[in-house]
Amino acid sequence: MNKTDKIMDIAAKRGFFYPSAEIYGSKAGFWTYGHLGTRIKHKWQNLWREFFLGLNNNFFEVEDCNILPKQVFVGSGHLENFNDPLTECNKCHFRFRADDLIEDALDINAEGIDEEAMTKLIEDNMLLCPKCQSKLLPVRMFNMMFDLKVGATGDDVMYLRPETAQAPFLAFKREFNALRKKIPMGLAVIGKAFRNEISPRQGFFRLREFSQAELQIFFDADKINEAEDWNSVKDYKLRLFTVKDRKTKKIQEVSCKDANTKLKIPKFYVYHLAKVQQFYLDALKVQKENFRFRELDAKERAFYNKIHFDVELNLETLKGFKEVAGVHYRTNHDLGGHQKCSKENLEVFVDEKRFVPHVLELSFGVDRNVWALLDIFYKEEKERALFTFPQNVAPIDVAVFPLVKKDNLPEKAQEIFKDLTKSFKTFYDESGSVGKRYRRQDEIGTIYCVTVDHDTLDKNTVTIRDRDSMKQIKVDVKELVNVLNKLICCELKFEKAGSLIK
Amino acid sequence: MNKTDKIMDIAAKRGFFYPSAEIYGSKAGFWTYGHLGTRIKHKWQNLWREFFLGLNNNFFEVEDCNILPKQVFVGSGHLENFNDPLTECNKCHFRFRADDLIEDALDINAEGIDEEAMTKLIEDNMLLCPKCQSKLLPVRMFNMMFDLKVGATGDDVMYLRPETAQAPFLAFKREFNALRKKIPMGLAVIGKAFRNEISPRQGFFRLREFSQAELQIFFDADKINEAEDWNSVKDYKLRLFTVKDRKTKKIQEVSCKDANTKLKIPKFYVYHLAKVQQFYLDALKVQKENFRFRELDAKERAFYNKIHFDVELNLETLKGFKEVAGVHYRTNHDLGGHQKCSKENLEVFVDEKRFVPHVLELSFGVDRNVWALLDIFYKEEKERALFTFPQNVAPIDVAVFPLVKKDNLPEKAQEIFKDLTKSFKTFYDESGSVGKRYRRQDEIGTIYCVTVDHDTLDKNTVTIRDRDSMKQIKVDVKELVNVLNKLICCELKFEKAGSLIK
Repeated sequence: MNKTDKIMDIAAKRGFFYPSAEIYGSKAGFWTYGHLGTRIKHKWQNLWREFFLGLNNNFFEVEDCNILPKQVFVGSGHLENFNDPLTECNKCHFRFRADDLIEDALDINAEGIDEEAMTKLIEDNMLLCPKCQSKLLPVRMFNMMFDLKVGATGDDVMYLRPETAQAPFLAFKREFNALRKKIPMGLAVIGKAFRNEISPRQGFFRLREFSQAELQIFFDADKINEAEDWNSVKDYKLRLFTVKDRKTKKIQEVSCKDANTKLKIPKFYVYHLAKVQQFYLDALKVQKENFRFRELDAKERAFYNKIHFDVELNLETLKGFKEVAGVHYRTNHDLGGHQKCSKENLEVFVDEKRFVPHVLELSFGVDRNVWALLDIFYKEEKERALFTFPQNVAPIDVAVFPLVKKDNLPEKAQEIFKDLTKSFKTFYDESGSVGKRYRRQDEIGTIYCVTVDHDTLDKNTVTIRDRDSMKQIKVDVKELVNVLNKLICCELKFEKAGSLIK
Repeated sequence: MNKTDKIMDIAAKRGFFYPSAEIYGSKAGFWTYGHLGTRIKHKWQNLWREFFLGLNNNFFEVEDCNILPKQVFVGSGHLENFNDPLTECNKCHFRFRADDLIEDALDINAEGIDEEAMTKLIEDNMLLCPKCQSKLLPVRMFNMMFDLKVGATGDDVMYLRPETAQAPFLAFKREFNALRKKIPMGLAVIGKAFRNEISPRQGFFRLREFSQAELQIFFDADKINEAEDWNSVKDYKLRLFTVKDRKTKKIQEVSCKDANTKLKIPKFYVYHLAKVQQFYLDALKVQKENFRFRELDAKERAFYNKIHFDVELNLETLKGFKEVAGVHYRTNHDLGGHQKCSKENLEVFVDEKRFVPHVLELSFGVDRNVWALLDIFYKEEKERALFTFPQNVAPIDVAVFPLVKKDNLPEKAQEIFKDLTKSFKTFYDESGSVGKRYRRQDEIGTIYCVTVDHDTLDKNTVTIRDRDSMKQIKVDVKELVNVLNKLICCELKFEKAGSLIK
């Protein structure tokens, strides 16, 4: 099995995730999060919330509907522009995403190529239907939004949102007034988005129903070269892969100061790049070699994005750097479009002037990030497979085992288990040998295992076993919560937290 | 303004909630949660999670897609049965929900009346189209699920789930295996559900897109008269309004023991009623007079629910007791239906026997519960309106104000604010008179206001003001976090937490 298959196998077997409605033969692009996956997802989301809403006391979260009126997508431009290139087989009438087909067949990057050029590429290279080897029809655009009929008469067409970003734009006026008319103001949404992908693939990387965590920061375009906390980041080194770096294929390490003065990226944008990088490197403990910001050129990025860097992580399962987030300077495209279409005035009056705020968007694909965690922290050793998750995303902190299923050990272990559940995400297991139980916990990334044995009854001590080093220490039951707390906060080295068992 | 309008007005103005896509003229049954509403909703959900998943170490949360294959709803019976009665005007062709129309016109409860009987009621009472006073056509059934076409060919019809409950049934087999084959096993989902309501109304009480928090507990039907923790609840008094009590219109207080032995409700069911009641009375601080369990009779409840009590709260805005949750003994209807339809064996082998587990469902409407909190905790006093939220659902714990916008007080207040944000949900405000700023915080239910004045600079003290009593105390800045923590945990009486200002 390759690494992807191994992770998928553990994921389905242990309850991270598996295909949605699997008992009915599931549809491509739909997944269920099991009990462990739901935990990781929530932990990642809470970490994201805490980190990004903590950047400014005027950043808040809102929640809107998944179903939105048609006019929203007239105003946003999605009804006209949110299309994927589609080609159909002349004979079997199977439909394919044209850019994927071209990329697979010709090994080139087809992003940003228009439909006529794709049709020409298909013709020039005599690409045929991958199913039946017949001729392919010219490439045309296919709108990726799901439409629904709302109401008993079925006259109202509404759409499932293809991105969470519209919520803050629609709520902007209400929230600006409620939050005392200050900018920068940030509105975040964590929620579902839906895209009728022609050919969902790459496991968790192209889904029809997926989760996003997005923060829209509304600001004054005249102040784009200002950042309140600039001094705290000016010497921080960003890992940039700009359009120019594509020739050398090398990632540059550039201080925020140089990114601003030499690369001419505005301070407000650079500051948020630094914060996004810190989220991955410091909060999620991603190794810096596996992180980069990839700049998109004018052809690749959406026409309304004036500056666009994707966050890419180097993922073995996906054979290289893959997009997990993006930082987009969307200008006043969104509020301007909605103002025009809704006829609602979306200007603000701040600092003695009236204007439509510009938007900096921090956009994260939650499912992609969850997959990235599994890829990055998966390890294989001689006798075991494990996930070396950091505590802030591990689904289970502590497992508790009685050494054997007799001599009152299960009762004692249950007692300790119940006590620990007040402070930690805890799992109790009493079946199988202790060695097997350790392996089972390693395989889901549980950080510590606590074993209750005859010493517990005699001397009131338990054994704590460390996932990564497999070392074991003896600790007094009275000290257990305290010691685990300190271990989890990294305030204590494992070897020093109790008496080491050699 | 009546109370509903007053709450709606505060909600929209201050950022609790407002109609979705309002700038485009919103559609009935769709709402946006603003920054305060999102906080309350998350706090309620986290409280629910902690409380109900904490009942048993084999209860976990899962997350499935909103879009599910058609076969799921063949198996669940929704495609055939999830209908609302609809009547159409013969002339203007406007469509109405027939039971609502009958209830409004005749002031009777139309729940459980079939379409023929409704048609007869309309004819006998000569009910006409409320829009144009023309004749109404016979009542027919209208399926309330939203369908969508998935994939580029549009051949795949899928549905938005009308309840979150299907997720645990679909995930049952995977999770039962992953969780070491033990029952009772509980699988919870907190997520969206979608119903194409003919006439959404009652504000937050009948939505087209809404949130549910549901826990499906899978158990052995032979053990329905057992509950592990029975002794802890046996003397606890349930507030029951059974079918028999409808004559006297009186709520009975019945101990769990009597509910089991005299009313013949099985222990497993009674135990969970007790826990649901404790969630409302102890965790959410709902006054017991405003809480009851209303039993549904065979006609009112779904045919597969063998025992069904709704949780009802007495809400002034809705003129009496209204359903906010339900406790449903669904038998083996769900797993049995999916087993039959999917041909997948969903039996378990536990305690030396093979069987399809039965299900006890605890089902909560999240939006209804949020509305109920606003209704229950809204108060009007001579000079102010306020929400007396308990801490575990209040959107903001502490507001920080400088007394005036000069003399370095804003800088000092900002410093204190930043320190408090590490421990509490905190809001900073410096504009307007302090009196007005207090009123603004009262209106959104902020528990404490901390004012920084000249004494802060001279003596390092601040004033804490209590929302409910409006009393004020002086506290040393060094003690502030500690004092607020104790106040919020109710470990300290406000008057004793500092020197009281008379």
